[in-house]
Amino acid sequence: MLSYESIDLYREDGFLFADPLTEKETDLLREQADREFLRDSPGRMLEKDGFTVRGVHGSHVVNSTFARLVRHPKIVTPATQLLGGPVYVHQFKINAKKALTGDVWPWHQDYIFWNLGDGMRRPDVVNVAVLLDEATDLNGPLLVLPGSHKCGSLEVARRTTVGGDGAWRSDISADLVYAIDAPLLSELTETTKVTAIKGPPGSILLFDPLLVHASGVNMAPYDRRMILVTYNRVDNPLGEVPSPRPDFLAARDNTPVRPLDPGADLFA
Amino acid sequence: MLSYESIDLYREDGFLFADPLTEKETDLLREQADREFLRDSPGRMLEKDGFTVRGVHGSHVVNSTFARLVRHPKIVTPATQLLGGPVYVHQFKINAKKALTGDVWPWHQDYIFWNLGDGMRRPDVVNVAVLLDEATDLNGPLLVLPGSHKCGSLEVARRTTVGGDGAWRSDISADLVYAIDAPLLSELTETTKVTAIKGPPGSILLFDPLLVHASGVNMAPYDRRMILVTYNRVDNPLGEVPSPRPDFLAARDNTPVRPLDPGADLFA
Repeated sequence: MLSYESIDLYREDGFLFADPLTEKETDLLREQADREFLRDSPGRMLEKDGFTVRGVHGSHVVNSTFARLVRHPKIVTPATQLLGGPVYVHQFKINAKKALTGDVWPWHQDYIFWNLGDGMRRPDVVNVAVLLDEATDLNGPLLVLPGSHKCGSLEVARRTTVGGDGAWRSDISADLVYAIDAPLLSELTETTKVTAIKGPPGSILLFDPLLVHASGVNMAPYDRRMILVTYNRVDNPLGEVPSPRPDFLAARDNTPVRPLDPGADLFA
Repeated sequence: MLSYESIDLYREDGFLFADPLTEKETDLLREQADREFLRDSPGRMLEKDGFTVRGVHGSHVVNSTFARLVRHPKIVTPATQLLGGPVYVHQFKINAKKALTGDVWPWHQDYIFWNLGDGMRRPDVVNVAVLLDEATDLNGPLLVLPGSHKCGSLEVARRTTVGGDGAWRSDISADLVYAIDAPLLSELTETTKVTAIKGPPGSILLFDPLLVHASGVNMAPYDRRMILVTYNRVDNPLGEVPSPRPDFLAARDNTPVRPLDPGADLFA
């Protein structure tokens, strides 16, 4: 359980490190992540080069390790605590950020995609990031703007993109449709300083769906893999939208996650 | 003049910080760089997006400030000293690394381009980098592998590219033809550690043409501009090659640079 101090810190900064996974658990996740990267599926995204894996979505539905991970007390318990009620998995993804070829995630807030794209009504969401590799300044770490979640949903122009059935693809590409531009980022950095989320494998970071964040390219000779589990409150289900995104991007089944027993891990 | 200790350090690491320019000089360079970015010329390169300026070449030939810069004692004197004889300007460029849109320079050595592309016979060259903006971990700083110049010219596969008259364009794009891949970079980092060249505006860095280097994207809301002057020994002129690159990439006039008086600056 998170302490009151930790919760205050989360409310203030919009992010918080929680208790890490063990080395053995992280090894297993890394192994399973690589397996998912190899499996061709609709939820697998490639980089612009057309062959490097950028990430894969929805693995918690098809892979028993990840199915267990979203029920792990170190992951789901702090998320439930921060949201104050039962949660379900809105989105699950593993970002690959491959050595030398892993591309940018431009500066953005998550909520606008879920609000406008999926009909989510309130930002009653927590993202849980699990670092599978050490994150350093060199390998495109997650970058955050502490406190930026307090700005609420920022007005950003929708980038023109190809419409139609596959329009959701640009939501998870290096050309995000709701990216924050340099003038707005410059304004935001007048009162807060970009912080790189660095840490060893197994580190767990909770962050707010309104927190402004990004990541650069990976200039290191090894991959920088990261899992992102997005929990939404069960009483904040998605509304109707004209062209719903695929289920692996926006789950419409809001069955609550049943946490593992306290003290359980990925193995037992 | 560089001390013997500094020269030893350069020989050991393959790079060295020299005496910086003054703030006033750097302000002038920044102002003139922006002017050159706006001027349409054959030596101006754009990023893949087709409109962001990536950099501009040959400005020392058309702009009096840069013409004076290549004769500046803080720039040309240490280069001459390290090369042990009169030098001429082989290449002059200003990299823009624009806020949020400035793209990668993949890991590479410079010499292979000049040796294979321009018929340069020996790596009797020094690069002088002048930082026009503060370089930080966030804005795509120059990254170097200390000591990697001692490996000599590394064997790297030539990336397939479009041939013909404009083939040189890929030499200065984000898809370098002689880039170092992840396995080779991984091997190189077993004995040395990637170092980010960080420092205030006006910093001057000398580096070896065989030093393995790169730079990532600029995730900051401001540009990270940098001048690169490449001096070659006058007695190491370019040889004949089938399709010589444009003069702004590989000067064939090896008239020695006439340094300004000792103690002179960009103004007088």
